[in-house]
Amino acid sequence: MLLFERMVIIGPGLIGGSLGLAVRRADLAGHVVGVGHRQVSIDKALAMGAIDSGSLDALEAVRGADLVIVCTAVGLIGRMIQNVADGLKPGGIVSDVGSAKALVVGRAEAVLPEGVHFVGAHPIAGSERRGIDIAQADLFADRLCVLTRNETTDEGALAKMKRLWTSVGARVRILTPERHDSILARTSHLPHAVAAVLLAALEDSDGPFVGSGFRDTTRIGSGDPGLWVDILLANRQGVLAALKGFNRRLGDLTRALAEDDADALGDFLARARNRRENELGHDAG
Amino acid sequence: MLLFERMVIIGPGLIGGSLGLAVRRADLAGHVVGVGHRQVSIDKALAMGAIDSGSLDALEAVRGADLVIVCTAVGLIGRMIQNVADGLKPGGIVSDVGSAKALVVGRAEAVLPEGVHFVGAHPIAGSERRGIDIAQADLFADRLCVLTRNETTDEGALAKMKRLWTSVGARVRILTPERHDSILARTSHLPHAVAAVLLAALEDSDGPFVGSGFRDTTRIGSGDPGLWVDILLANRQGVLAALKGFNRRLGDLTRALAEDDADALGDFLARARNRRENELGHDAG
Repeated sequence: MLLFERMVIIGPGLIGGSLGLAVRRADLAGHVVGVGHRQVSIDKALAMGAIDSGSLDALEAVRGADLVIVCTAVGLIGRMIQNVADGLKPGGIVSDVGSAKALVVGRAEAVLPEGVHFVGAHPIAGSERRGIDIAQADLFADRLCVLTRNETTDEGALAKMKRLWTSVGARVRILTPERHDSILARTSHLPHAVAAVLLAALEDSDGPFVGSGFRDTTRIGSGDPGLWVDILLANRQGVLAALKGFNRRLGDLTRALAEDDADALGDFLARARNRRENELGHDAG
Repeated sequence: MLLFERMVIIGPGLIGGSLGLAVRRADLAGHVVGVGHRQVSIDKALAMGAIDSGSLDALEAVRGADLVIVCTAVGLIGRMIQNVADGLKPGGIVSDVGSAKALVVGRAEAVLPEGVHFVGAHPIAGSERRGIDIAQADLFADRLCVLTRNETTDEGALAKMKRLWTSVGARVRILTPERHDSILARTSHLPHAVAAVLLAALEDSDGPFVGSGFRDTTRIGSGDPGLWVDILLANRQGVLAALKGFNRRLGDLTRALAEDDADALGDFLARARNRRENELGHDAG
């Protein structure tokens, strides 16, 4: 089912490369162009079959594109959209896959010419690893993909993006950019910050005493620091609000412990366990 | 290599049952008695080959024992030692496998008769699951086991316990009970509390947006609430101190974010990542 004649993926890494593989497998685009800033990345994407052709020049590549999807680190998305804005054709769609949305959507809408539609996207299918080497066509199968809608969103463009993500296997949810950022702060950005804090709170000689529990709890602490600085800063207000909520609950737990209150402590842990076992999505990635 | 003629395991669950399996496989004891409070648990331990015989009566079972090792939940250890104190023979050793040590050691030393030696032990080989069904003889292979020493510890008993744990494959470290509790607060008890707080900080409708990162970070939140209330309360001072350190670091991170300080944020995350990748034990369990 052809959705786009010419589709451009800027930054064919884990997410962009996987999207290219999935789009080509399902024949969703007539031609997929990959834009990288190093020829070696483009060659890899070509060799893996994630793109039909490659380019080092984003502005040239986007000319005539029906869909341009920016898959770079979240801190670079705004600038990249600005860089290619002049090359976009009326009626074309621009999208992204960033983990923070309000800042990106605002920036995109500020720089895109009249008649070019922006739809923010965030497939929740990350990994603490990166790069096209681990890209796979079924990365999005049964994963959640959030698309953003605000008062300026073009409904036709949104519907088309929904068909794209559904066609690569994702389950689509539509949220305002602000609501997305508020939720993801709690479900993703805050846990990342907290994992780093748990690591920072270790003393130097604690290493040998670390067990599998600590290791699981801090696995996301292995993520790329530069990437995560970008994400945390791109969702600064959301993460600060989530930290406030976290601190309030941490205070509750600390108080129960300080007061030797076994009942309050037991309630707290039982509620947490119940949420962990019964209320989390089972396939959101 | 026979270390003990008669060894009694009180509470043959995951840890006690695995110890029984390992001890019998390596012929470290002439006879291993399992004490449970339900016949069905004893029958299971017998069927798995974790014990040579079973008893429902702890006081009777410990008579004549060279080693009694209490493998119950940490909150029950002190009371159990008190219950069997009258049956212990001079020169006998009493030990445990609890995750918090200072309170247990203090309690044991207060109730044990003159000439019976207590050595606290904590094999760091837990799981969020429990029970003898998942016991295995090599549970302790290459795992760390902390033994405690204070000014009243009998060196002969400590040496014997060290041989026991080394013989079942563990690497042994000897610490004071207080030092153990301070370290484990940071490496195990604090992460457990923090996982529960992350779960508590979710809003009700956040579930579908949870990804693999959140899931890993909160896996230990599935642990048995009663068991963990016991552990947190048994190491109350240690955990409160660890919470204080955690809060200080959390404040650092929050400040960097509030001040939009990308450099400070990047340093924080890079140090955390470095610790995660280079400074943690690779096989402590």
